[in-house]
Amino acid sequence: MQVTFLGTSSGVPTRARNVSAVALRLPQRAELWLFDCGEGTQHQFLRSDLRVSQLRRIFVTHMHGDHVFGLPGLLASLGLAGSCAGIDLYGPDPLRDYLEGVMRTSSTRIGYPLRTHRVKDAAARGTLVLDDDDITVRCTALTHRVPAYAYRVDQKPRAGRFDVERARALGIPPGPVYAELKAGRSVTLDDGRVIRGEALCGPPRPGCSVVYCTDTVFSEAAVALARGADLLIHESTFSHGEAELAIARQHSTSTMAAQTALEAGVKQLVLTHLSPRYVAGNPMTPDDLVAEARAIFPETVVAKDFLSLSVGTAG
Amino acid sequence: MQVTFLGTSSGVPTRARNVSAVALRLPQRAELWLFDCGEGTQHQFLRSDLRVSQLRRIFVTHMHGDHVFGLPGLLASLGLAGSCAGIDLYGPDPLRDYLEGVMRTSSTRIGYPLRTHRVKDAAARGTLVLDDDDITVRCTALTHRVPAYAYRVDQKPRAGRFDVERARALGIPPGPVYAELKAGRSVTLDDGRVIRGEALCGPPRPGCSVVYCTDTVFSEAAVALARGADLLIHESTFSHGEAELAIARQHSTSTMAAQTALEAGVKQLVLTHLSPRYVAGNPMTPDDLVAEARAIFPETVVAKDFLSLSVGTAG
Repeated sequence: MQVTFLGTSSGVPTRARNVSAVALRLPQRAELWLFDCGEGTQHQFLRSDLRVSQLRRIFVTHMHGDHVFGLPGLLASLGLAGSCAGIDLYGPDPLRDYLEGVMRTSSTRIGYPLRTHRVKDAAARGTLVLDDDDITVRCTALTHRVPAYAYRVDQKPRAGRFDVERARALGIPPGPVYAELKAGRSVTLDDGRVIRGEALCGPPRPGCSVVYCTDTVFSEAAVALARGADLLIHESTFSHGEAELAIARQHSTSTMAAQTALEAGVKQLVLTHLSPRYVAGNPMTPDDLVAEARAIFPETVVAKDFLSLSVGTAG
Repeated sequence: MQVTFLGTSSGVPTRARNVSAVALRLPQRAELWLFDCGEGTQHQFLRSDLRVSQLRRIFVTHMHGDHVFGLPGLLASLGLAGSCAGIDLYGPDPLRDYLEGVMRTSSTRIGYPLRTHRVKDAAARGTLVLDDDDITVRCTALTHRVPAYAYRVDQKPRAGRFDVERARALGIPPGPVYAELKAGRSVTLDDGRVIRGEALCGPPRPGCSVVYCTDTVFSEAAVALARGADLLIHESTFSHGEAELAIARQHSTSTMAAQTALEAGVKQLVLTHLSPRYVAGNPMTPDDLVAEARAIFPETVVAKDFLSLSVGTAG
């Protein structure tokens, strides 16, 4: 999986950072998923190397404008491009009303299937938001001024790497039989031989996991959701010194994000959703926030727009 | 008056052109007005030398997304900045519903007075949308797939330039009396002399006028509104060769825009709202559209993002 940050500012855009959006590329299925969609996200796609035509699912954490005001424009542009097979949208209860109101008053016709899924019940019951052959998605309620949800994407363990050279050397004719063998199943060839797929595959490859957690003050539910994840993307609106403000506004400090990563035992933490006050030239900068977090959780980096990270094995 | 184009593409943003927005700076009252507000307009303000804190009025032509999807974010950011004294919004009937729906579902609190004015009746009756000491604004209904309105801003004629050196030479003590004289009124000084302000002022300066006309197919109402204007900003979504498509979609070609300028007898025409198909490297470019228009109306230029034009006398 490949994670690309398209917006890393909180509240308002700056010249360097747009408001929230994170793209998740799933190369093995040629799909792009999006987490949040602040105003200007479609513009950020234009400036990235991501193909917006691959977009299939959008997960919305909460309804604040800096996380959703880019949705109508992105969905309308996908319609004008004419190549969208359909979009599944996941989010808080008001998401459907919001979009229906905007589309009605602006006479916007989408022209492709747009399905909106409410995640409140899945968060409350701990059931899966999505479960298909390759991937599960679950969510949990965070602690913010409005209902907000963190999402966790888990890739299922995959069969080991298929040794195509060895299969050829065994004289197995190429064709659909290769897919069976790749999946680790046994196959009887036309000549009567029984080939065990497992014998042609390397050891099973564990799936990887990404957790997206914004907006929230420190949350035990976020710790539980992020348990053992490869990558935790966590909001860090404020520096440690602004803890009082963070609590008042139900946002996180750098150290709350680090504490979440530490308690959850994740492999890597990325700080995002930074207040515009943290820029070079001001008393505190993004580098200072990273330093504060690293004192608690060393494997921390700070996001910037268009930062791209690979998670897990490729392919 | 100073006109700055913040978005000049139709339908969708491109890497070079954002969707519709035009700023009008009124230096003599330190105010900024905005015409349309496509997604990303607040980002364009960040990249311009305009001060968004001076924004006082926003005129919306019609409800299509590429003209209004930047409004919620801009209005919310003005609220977060905390320095906005109030905004007056003018536009089609659904504008208020649109914003109320977005603000409600996104829990956005604006924190300053936001007044929404419907312009339908003013367009139908030919009455003024705005009339104050310096300026009038009127509008007219265009011909598009949804109700759309063109706006005309007229600066009222102003008193001639005040000759402050001559006033000093006459021994007139500086003070509030200068404002009276500047306005062309007569004043009796403490020493009994009667000074005629007119005698200290140059000839009255005519006001200038700007017309913003989008989206529409060729419209006689637009011609009437633009009569004798200094600057006509007119949509030119398509080239002359695409007239059939323009009529089907109720948009203008370059030559329809030029015909409007010619019939209205304006001083200058600016083409904007160009289809993304017109880029360098494609068979037709923005330069080709200008050439087509100039064959009919020579004083034509094509807008690009951040193009800035002065209209009328400064100050």
